[in-house]
Amino acid sequence: MKTRSRATVLAAAASALLALIWYRYGVTLAAESGPTTESVTDPQGNLRVPEGYRGTYEYLGSWAIAAAQGQGSKELHIVYASPGTMSAYQKKGSFPDGAVLVKEVFEAATAPMTTGTVSHADKLKGWFVMVRDTADHHPGNKLWGDGWGWAWFDASSPSKTTSRDYRVDCLTCHIPARATDWIYVGGYPSIRR
Amino acid sequence: MKTRSRATVLAAAASALLALIWYRYGVTLAAESGPTTESVTDPQGNLRVPEGYRGTYEYLGSWAIAAAQGQGSKELHIVYASPGTMSAYQKKGSFPDGAVLVKEVFEAATAPMTTGTVSHADKLKGWFVMVRDTADHHPGNKLWGDGWGWAWFDASSPSKTTSRDYRVDCLTCHIPARATDWIYVGGYPSIRR
Repeated sequence: MKTRSRATVLAAAASALLALIWYRYGVTLAAESGPTTESVTDPQGNLRVPEGYRGTYEYLGSWAIAAAQGQGSKELHIVYASPGTMSAYQKKGSFPDGAVLVKEVFEAATAPMTTGTVSHADKLKGWFVMVRDTADHHPGNKLWGDGWGWAWFDASSPSKTTSRDYRVDCLTCHIPARATDWIYVGGYPSIRR
Repeated sequence: MKTRSRATVLAAAASALLALIWYRYGVTLAAESGPTTESVTDPQGNLRVPEGYRGTYEYLGSWAIAAAQGQGSKELHIVYASPGTMSAYQKKGSFPDGAVLVKEVFEAATAPMTTGTVSHADKLKGWFVMVRDTADHHPGNKLWGDGWGWAWFDASSPSKTTSRDYRVDCLTCHIPARATDWIYVGGYPSIRR
């Protein structure tokens, strides 16, 4: 009986250990890979705004677009990256394949505050979404090319882009950032090198 | 032998299940509570900037402080909250005890870009740190009161505040936000109600 008990205990302990290792490994993998590219694009390369990115993505940086007249900002752009992007960029100096960037475009509200004339994010106008893809997975899709998938989404339609051709609708504004894979990395203190 | 084997298998399975539940529960708890208040304050209530907050905290919002002359911003303020703060606020309409807010204060750099005259975060000047504390844990400490711990840190000294009395050094700028527990929540789209 003693031997059997010991065998039972040992088997249970071994199983528990294996379960722990498996679970920990699974959890670690999930945490490191984060939301998969599948939550942003389907097999045909159709893009969408990933759900819940504010709770799971990393904050990358903000841009304040000055008002044409007077003080303050007319828009604030807030950029998020999928989990792991910052550390991958810090290590390699480039965005890893599958990395997703989401740029929120807000109308800004400006008011006098105790720190001066201050603008903050007010009404969401929409999102720019980019997905890193150096392997050119969607050569026939006009929203993919130059190492990225590109799309704009109005605030009312996070799953249906209004972009038709990234070369016309997206790339032109990114030409000055061509040397840094089309991304204005200088605005992102966390990954600035 | 068959009975014994079955017992062994059952015991092992039960242990594995228990281990999984325990481990999952432990992981879940850790993920929800996030960095503990201890990483920001010691038992005497001395505050510091939490290490690694950019990788673990939630992005809350940005403020663009207009330049006194001409277009653009002179500063950008970026606010992070400790993990779980956003969902807790969304549920209860207030900041949970132990919640930590970190506000980065950057000098802004302004330049013409394809979207207009645009400012982004440049040189870090320092941090404001606040810790929610409705129970008034440090009544004799002049950096704690009105439901928060308060402190400013120069960029060169994230572990040693230059603040001496929150009523003089911090609270005055927050008086217009008194009704919302001293926080300008209107600038934070994720928790705006």
